Amino acid sequence: MSTAVNTCVVLAGRPDGMPTESCWRVEERLVQPLEEGQVLVAIETVSIDPAMRAWMTEFCYVGCVELGTTMWAFAVGEVQDSRHPNFLPGDKVRGLLGVQQYGVICGDELEKIDTDGESLSNHLGIYGMTGLTAYFGITDLVEVQPGAQVLVSTAAGAVGSVVAQIASLRGARVVGIAGGPQKNRFCIDELGMDACIDYKNGELAAQLEAAMPKGVDIYFDNVGMPTLDIVLNHMNEFGSIIVCGAINQYQNMDKVEGPAEYLRIPERKLSMLGFTCFHYAERFPEGVRVLKQWVSEGKLKFFEDHAYGLENFPQHFIKMFTGEHKGKLFINP
Amino acid sequence: MSTAVNTCVVLAGRPDGMPTESCWRVEERLVQPLEEGQVLVAIETVSIDPAMRAWMTEFCYVGCVELGTTMWAFAVGEVQDSRHPNFLPGDKVRGLLGVQQYGVICGDELEKIDTDGESLSNHLGIYGMTGLTAYFGITDLVEVQPGAQVLVSTAAGAVGSVVAQIASLRGARVVGIAGGPQKNRFCIDELGMDACIDYKNGELAAQLEAAMPKGVDIYFDNVGMPTLDIVLNHMNEFGSIIVCGAINQYQNMDKVEGPAEYLRIPERKLSMLGFTCFHYAERFPEGVRVLKQWVSEGKLKFFEDHAYGLENFPQHFIKMFTGEHKGKLFINP
Repeated sequence: MSTAVNTCVVLAGRPDGMPTESCWRVEERLVQPLEEGQVLVAIETVSIDPAMRAWMTEFCYVGCVELGTTMWAFAVGEVQDSRHPNFLPGDKVRGLLGVQQYGVICGDELEKIDTDGESLSNHLGIYGMTGLTAYFGITDLVEVQPGAQVLVSTAAGAVGSVVAQIASLRGARVVGIAGGPQKNRFCIDELGMDACIDYKNGELAAQLEAAMPKGVDIYFDNVGMPTLDIVLNHMNEFGSIIVCGAINQYQNMDKVEGPAEYLRIPERKLSMLGFTCFHYAERFPEGVRVLKQWVSEGKLKFFEDHAYGLENFPQHFIKMFTGEHKGKLFINP
Repeated sequence: MSTAVNTCVVLAGRPDGMPTESCWRVEERLVQPLEEGQVLVAIETVSIDPAMRAWMTEFCYVGCVELGTTMWAFAVGEVQDSRHPNFLPGDKVRGLLGVQQYGVICGDELEKIDTDGESLSNHLGIYGMTGLTAYFGITDLVEVQPGAQVLVSTAAGAVGSVVAQIASLRGARVVGIAGGPQKNRFCIDELGMDACIDYKNGELAAQLEAAMPKGVDIYFDNVGMPTLDIVLNHMNEFGSIIVCGAINQYQNMDKVEGPAEYLRIPERKLSMLGFTCFHYAERFPEGVRVLKQWVSEGKLKFFEDHAYGLENFPQHFIKMFTGEHKGKLFINP
């Protein structure tokens, strides 16, 4: 294996605003021989997540991808070779393996997966960061009461679609925000939402008033401003806003727009609660167990949008911000 | 009494930014005869509160003072005459009686006070909105652990000074933010804070880093931006920000500045929690009982800053925003 050729997607430039195809280039590099403790993984599926946009900048709080090196990404695959005692060829694994065909990684940073006969990509999606983010966000930070008015932004997206379904399972009335009639139908017909607001079709405040005349008890926010301000004005007393992300903001993190309506928080005794799934790392096994049960019982659907060939990574990645997708984005090398 | 002359402070103009003396005028009006259910109160002390700035604008969510009418304010006094079955002349009472000598009010909106031999003004201050705001904000929204790092803005002010002392009683390390060396000494020497930051003396971020090298676990915010952003960047993981007010913002509520650093909330799993004391109306008796106990045991001090004569109301009111005071502002007609 040590002379295998590895196709990889390399960060070629830092984006100024929306990433373009020129931010990356595809390169072929030789796979380096394993050092003690390392594992070689043949990557089957690469996860495309909003955090990757932050990793492209110089100022991300968790560090950033160096120019000329492989783009970071979570991925799943099969062990080809191992110099780590916990891994053997054939093991299915998950880790920060990068956007490439082969990942060489320290075994201590790799996780073995029991696929249970399910597809490997589930462990990046519904049982991965996406599903776990949705699960802990909507079950731990708030208690969704039957009849609660729950609003979810990016409702047709990876996290939003799972949040909405879990809130429905708890008996809430769930309204989504998604772009375009096709996604709105998807949210209602496929994901079971009670209503959906098309943010591309007219004034959001008026649509929100019409879709949620009883106000909003829980808002699960993946987009940030200006939607956040409009929702703050429509929150019910004692309501909660769960801040999961701000996809509208990720092209310009140097100049984040704060919620000007944040004084609704004291006025209406609101709580604005933030988290990342990594804050729940110790409880991942619980999250995966519950999500698996819901999936096996047919109570929870998860939609995957795969592209094939690493040369298609840039355009597939950009869909995350333009919204030309439903469910969770993946690239298969 | 029906022919008594009532000196009152009338709203003469709406402020554009900081209120000026010309926003009010002092008038003499005849006290009107009582209607069925009304009570006439001779006002002893008028409370000066930040909410009054909002009541001067046209767009306050609880309504506003009409031009040419008496400025709203909470006040305490003694019943002179009553056409309400619950009140008799001589009763001590509290209510939204206005900035004037005599208030005529529906008895249903008036509250009888048991002074217990203490000064009446206590029931506007330490046992009134001020003390109750501090008490519920720092005891109900968060649990202050011994050793917690607690930061309080407007630390020499009415609410802040009480919040800081309660946090100290719970064993926290308490740091205040106040303007000028005199107030900083007051916070440390009189209020027992562990340290105090002078926001008028150099860069706040560096001072915060020096005063709280272990970061901030709980921030009790009375000022809003730009301090709020600086503190967000200094919050510890799992910390809480209690949004009580935004005194820096009250001169320009049409253009509120939102916290641009709010994405620290998900990054660090923070909670931003808002409230007003009115959300705890049912628990006021509990709050007053606990506050009285602390005061009687000498554990809690409360500082009052009285001015005398209604003609001095405007300049005393404006101190609330310029910070030329310590503790709670009152005007005595």
